[in-house]
Amino acid sequence: MTEKVALIGSGNWGSAVAKIIGRNVVRFDHFDNQVKMWVFEEKVNGQNLTEIINTKHENVKYLPGIQLPENIVACPDLVETCRDASMLVFVVPHQFVASICKQLKGKIQPNCKAISLIKGIDVNEHGFRLITDMIQESLNIRSCILSGANIASEVAEERFCETTIGYRNRSDGELFKEIFHTPSFRVNIVEDVVGVELCGALKNIVAIGGGLVDGLKLGDNTKAAIIRIGLYEMRKFSQMFYKDVRDETFFESCGVADLITTCAGGRNRKVAEAHVVTGKSFDQLEQEMLNGQKLQGTSTAKDMYNILSKNNLCHEFPLMTTIYRICYENLPPIRIVEDI
Amino acid sequence: MTEKVALIGSGNWGSAVAKIIGRNVVRFDHFDNQVKMWVFEEKVNGQNLTEIINTKHENVKYLPGIQLPENIVACPDLVETCRDASMLVFVVPHQFVASICKQLKGKIQPNCKAISLIKGIDVNEHGFRLITDMIQESLNIRSCILSGANIASEVAEERFCETTIGYRNRSDGELFKEIFHTPSFRVNIVEDVVGVELCGALKNIVAIGGGLVDGLKLGDNTKAAIIRIGLYEMRKFSQMFYKDVRDETFFESCGVADLITTCAGGRNRKVAEAHVVTGKSFDQLEQEMLNGQKLQGTSTAKDMYNILSKNNLCHEFPLMTTIYRICYENLPPIRIVEDI
Repeated sequence: MTEKVALIGSGNWGSAVAKIIGRNVVRFDHFDNQVKMWVFEEKVNGQNLTEIINTKHENVKYLPGIQLPENIVACPDLVETCRDASMLVFVVPHQFVASICKQLKGKIQPNCKAISLIKGIDVNEHGFRLITDMIQESLNIRSCILSGANIASEVAEERFCETTIGYRNRSDGELFKEIFHTPSFRVNIVEDVVGVELCGALKNIVAIGGGLVDGLKLGDNTKAAIIRIGLYEMRKFSQMFYKDVRDETFFESCGVADLITTCAGGRNRKVAEAHVVTGKSFDQLEQEMLNGQKLQGTSTAKDMYNILSKNNLCHEFPLMTTIYRICYENLPPIRIVEDI
Repeated sequence: MTEKVALIGSGNWGSAVAKIIGRNVVRFDHFDNQVKMWVFEEKVNGQNLTEIINTKHENVKYLPGIQLPENIVACPDLVETCRDASMLVFVVPHQFVASICKQLKGKIQPNCKAISLIKGIDVNEHGFRLITDMIQESLNIRSCILSGANIASEVAEERFCETTIGYRNRSDGELFKEIFHTPSFRVNIVEDVVGVELCGALKNIVAIGGGLVDGLKLGDNTKAAIIRIGLYEMRKFSQMFYKDVRDETFFESCGVADLITTCAGGRNRKVAEAHVVTGKSFDQLEQEMLNGQKLQGTSTAKDMYNILSKNNLCHEFPLMTTIYRICYENLPPIRIVEDI
């Protein structure tokens, strides 16, 4: 049976994995060699982005300077991209998932499997929902998750790193590993979709904490303590709401490694540091430093705080709660070490 | 029953914990208020260091600028320091432990308990031995261990951090926690002496790896991967040789937090980075950067490699083995990502 991969998304991260997937599918007999990639059509210097990608084999807008394999075919039509695929790779901002699934419903192959490369959780007034659950429920297919210490540009340049795939069915995990694993992008697979996915969402809150400590200039000991407590609270939260989440997952790239990377660099850390140094609000800093784009760390902190307070659990998660209060209730940043 | 604490050692770290212990013992009724601290006598500007400490209440040589509590009494005689103590705190370089225990044998109280703040393992031609085991066997007393992300100067300045005490008897762990725990120096206790102790010894090997990656300028993803694989191999090694070592220990300050701190700063990281940048040997860099002092990371890598190769286990510990080969067999540093 031949598997056929479709990529849903073509941003910075989507293009970086396109390079990997395009090369990997031709290494195995059981993959169709052509990989369609859905591109939200836009004009770049008067030309369609899909045409540029299909002639230059480069995503000049979102991953300039990196050559894509020629078997990656950009396609502006979502349904057309996915119609004959058996493996869907979701790599879009999380707010687009619901609408994408709605468009794909009833239009995909019955044997289709998915993997989500999306970081974030979907929160509404009733609680929260994982992106993989949204995909599974709306398309009635199984979904894996891929998450790890993976800065897109470093992956595209083939610098050594690792990643984690969480699966429910081992055969799905092994199949997706085949299209992602390379000598410089090492994939480990674990039977824990929820743990892997929650690591990717919750780490951004801890990165805010790391940035606050950097701004306060408290030193390496304190920062390591905040990262450790953050990892502990991530695990505790995950296992409180999903009892099958495994300890082992937090030792994987999606856990401790991604947390270290996110607390060392990244914009959540940077803006939080600036909040301490300048005294400006996060809203104002988002305007000044991110052109008004919203930070994931602060919004996830708020989502998590809502869940915790609704369940009377704030006292059991002092770090996450204090980070929320510093971001949204004008608590002085030093309280990050006083209140935990 | 009154407990009496004696401090064996008065270097940088010993003096930092003297400040904490001196303050803590007076907070409880069941501790003798006076804490003797053994000081290897030496002259500082013509005056005995013990006299300076007992009049100025400052260790001007090893922790200048930090006021010690007046109930810390420096004593140049080891046996005199420990004779009436029920709690011994070992905080000396590991090569002195055997001789100290020999001097103390038969001279200490029968109800005596110990805690080791020493990082390192004792390796000889027969294998390796933990410092706590050396203390336990030679003095016939139980020994706890304290280890964590604790840079002495930051602890002395009361910046927030955490540490871990490993115990065999819970009552020992709780008792030692009383003399160490403060709002800015948070102690967690775990029933795992061996795990805590091996974390403190093995992390320095991984820090060499972190420094190599920094020198190679491979970026945050790669460094996080090396730290993660290092943590994984530390745990695997510990549990292979001591089956009771607990996974949980590696989530504590002694595990993941200390590893992060050591890979972010510290001289093992620094010299390894210089090895890549300058191409000079570790021996030469130890001369130039450390006045000929030896790095713990390289010597522990050698100790570990000897244990692994004797047990035909090198292939199961690719990171530790590759770090050894880069340090001692002139392997090019880039092999740290190629060989693992």
